[in-house]
Amino acid sequence: MDINGSEVAWRFGAGNPSLEAASALSIRAIVHRLYGCVDRSNPRKLAPLGHGDPSPFACFRAAAPAEEAVAAAAVSGKYNSYPTAAGLTDACRHYNLLPEKGWEVDIEGVEALADENTVAIVTVNPNNPCGSVYSYEHLAKIAETARKLGMMVISDEIYEHCAFGSKPFVPMGVFGEIAPVVTLGGISKRWMVPGWRLGWIAMTDPKGILRKKKIFEAIIIYRGISVDPAAVVQGAIPQIIANTDNAFFTNAMNIMREAAEICYQKLKGTECITCPHKPEGSMFVMVKLDMSYFEGIVDDIDFCTKLAKEESVVICPGSGLGMENWLRVTFAVDPPLLEDGLERLKSFCLRHAKPQEAGDSVMC
Amino acid sequence: MDINGSEVAWRFGAGNPSLEAASALSIRAIVHRLYGCVDRSNPRKLAPLGHGDPSPFACFRAAAPAEEAVAAAAVSGKYNSYPTAAGLTDACRHYNLLPEKGWEVDIEGVEALADENTVAIVTVNPNNPCGSVYSYEHLAKIAETARKLGMMVISDEIYEHCAFGSKPFVPMGVFGEIAPVVTLGGISKRWMVPGWRLGWIAMTDPKGILRKKKIFEAIIIYRGISVDPAAVVQGAIPQIIANTDNAFFTNAMNIMREAAEICYQKLKGTECITCPHKPEGSMFVMVKLDMSYFEGIVDDIDFCTKLAKEESVVICPGSGLGMENWLRVTFAVDPPLLEDGLERLKSFCLRHAKPQEAGDSVMC
Repeated sequence: MDINGSEVAWRFGAGNPSLEAASALSIRAIVHRLYGCVDRSNPRKLAPLGHGDPSPFACFRAAAPAEEAVAAAAVSGKYNSYPTAAGLTDACRHYNLLPEKGWEVDIEGVEALADENTVAIVTVNPNNPCGSVYSYEHLAKIAETARKLGMMVISDEIYEHCAFGSKPFVPMGVFGEIAPVVTLGGISKRWMVPGWRLGWIAMTDPKGILRKKKIFEAIIIYRGISVDPAAVVQGAIPQIIANTDNAFFTNAMNIMREAAEICYQKLKGTECITCPHKPEGSMFVMVKLDMSYFEGIVDDIDFCTKLAKEESVVICPGSGLGMENWLRVTFAVDPPLLEDGLERLKSFCLRHAKPQEAGDSVMC
Repeated sequence: MDINGSEVAWRFGAGNPSLEAASALSIRAIVHRLYGCVDRSNPRKLAPLGHGDPSPFACFRAAAPAEEAVAAAAVSGKYNSYPTAAGLTDACRHYNLLPEKGWEVDIEGVEALADENTVAIVTVNPNNPCGSVYSYEHLAKIAETARKLGMMVISDEIYEHCAFGSKPFVPMGVFGEIAPVVTLGGISKRWMVPGWRLGWIAMTDPKGILRKKKIFEAIIIYRGISVDPAAVVQGAIPQIIANTDNAFFTNAMNIMREAAEICYQKLKGTECITCPHKPEGSMFVMVKLDMSYFEGIVDDIDFCTKLAKEESVVICPGSGLGMENWLRVTFAVDPPLLEDGLERLKSFCLRHAKPQEAGDSVMC
């Protein structure tokens, strides 16, 4: 029975029997279960002859220059960035965010889209690409909607600590009593190390619904078939957390706030661009192009292609996110270069503007 | 035309149109193409406002304690091991290796198994779990078979440098003229750092067949949706290669050879165990259990479960690799502990042996 006295028909459930069967018979699962069988009171040293990993033994200690090279790479600061590409196509239906309402979730649209096969709503807060941060009230409304539709909430909070506007960041997990929440997080944004590739999944499930529906086990199984983060980064986590003081985060957010302000003001001062919402979180802002302003530019991809060629300014066209004739601009750039890049964007726009139609009156 | 004057009907081909379409429209693919549009002769600094990565800029330099922590973790040697699980279920049909022929590929079996949907043969050399290293002649025979059946060879050579027997390791790529080869490798085994999670894919395609069939492009697309290795490890690669001298590898292989010898002799001296082939590569050996020897032990999983409980010795049951009543034993263990663990295995076997059937004559 739920808090309102009625049973909620949670629609989601785990259970990919072939995956589970394959996973249960995987070598790692079998060996893992054997470790559970070992009598810990047995004084003899455990002999791990089940999986091949020489590295824990002194005689097979890794090459010292290799360890030193990783250490040197780490302190060089040169290898904190994204190395190559990643990203999977989305299996959820797309709902809308409302630019005129600070990119809030279109709740009515979500209710219309969801059907009996819809098991979860995915939210991204603070939002990439919109730069928005949701209020406590809006998050509560999302959770209530999820409950009404029998869905869990999957909350991408990778920009958790990247809220620099007036609204504080509120984790979706606060509303776990209303609907169960699966939260995604990571060290990428807070510590400015996206290339270290370490994230996590947390579950807020005070009513045990995810456990009952075996979502917990499904995530454990998934972990068994996904690629591991580098052990060297995992091993550093306690020190990373213990040794980074608040001044680092405060300073980073102060620069990010300044950069967001520069970005917003420069874009506002560019005639053919509309910015519906001042960025208050993440590292991005979405702006709309007025295509009628231009001559010889057909769409956002054409715009960005010519901009890259003529001005050496790379901006992501909205089409890449399903928003034709919008632009996604990042402000996570050294402020002087950001300012210069946006100046170049402005002069590009002026250069490609349609000429004033002074001939109109002559024709009448 | 091939070297024998006839056209080979290569059966494989790339082309998952939905994956390609999704990938072409992915933000990273679009932004990547825009970088290609930039005029490199333009003296102005490129303004990268297309993707959000603050880490290259000095003002957003990663937290120093985080970098230092990764460096410390790296030189501590404590985080070189496998952190958690990985591994995907196999989509290839299973062919047999012949234990009595040094675990060579059952070529006739492969020919019988392959049909018009079979596009590749996967080989693992040096072999985990069998501990075998293939001869030049056998590898040539595999390549000829692949050619005959119109298949490419996918050669897992992660244990490339882990051959310590009489046969030298020969890369499958040597036979690229016969059939195209996709080789998998990595730093895990040679540098004893499996937890650093860095590998590679190489193509040996002197006749351009993989290119013509768009396998090359398919691998590039796949790279776009897979998880990246940690940048900090990628960044260290040139120093790892440049600074590790041969003495490290020679010493590691000397210990591995010694450990393999201990393992083989101890297992040979255990009555109920048969070792069809002395290990000469990788870090494993497969041995067969004589189940008729035991009382109260039903199969390999039961054997390993009781062994873990009673002797604190963890060995992987063959069932995990589809070989019931076999065992996969690693020798990548500190030699004294390996020796002790295998002694415990022997006393376990003796303790669970069927009593001598002295009553037989009384019954007749």
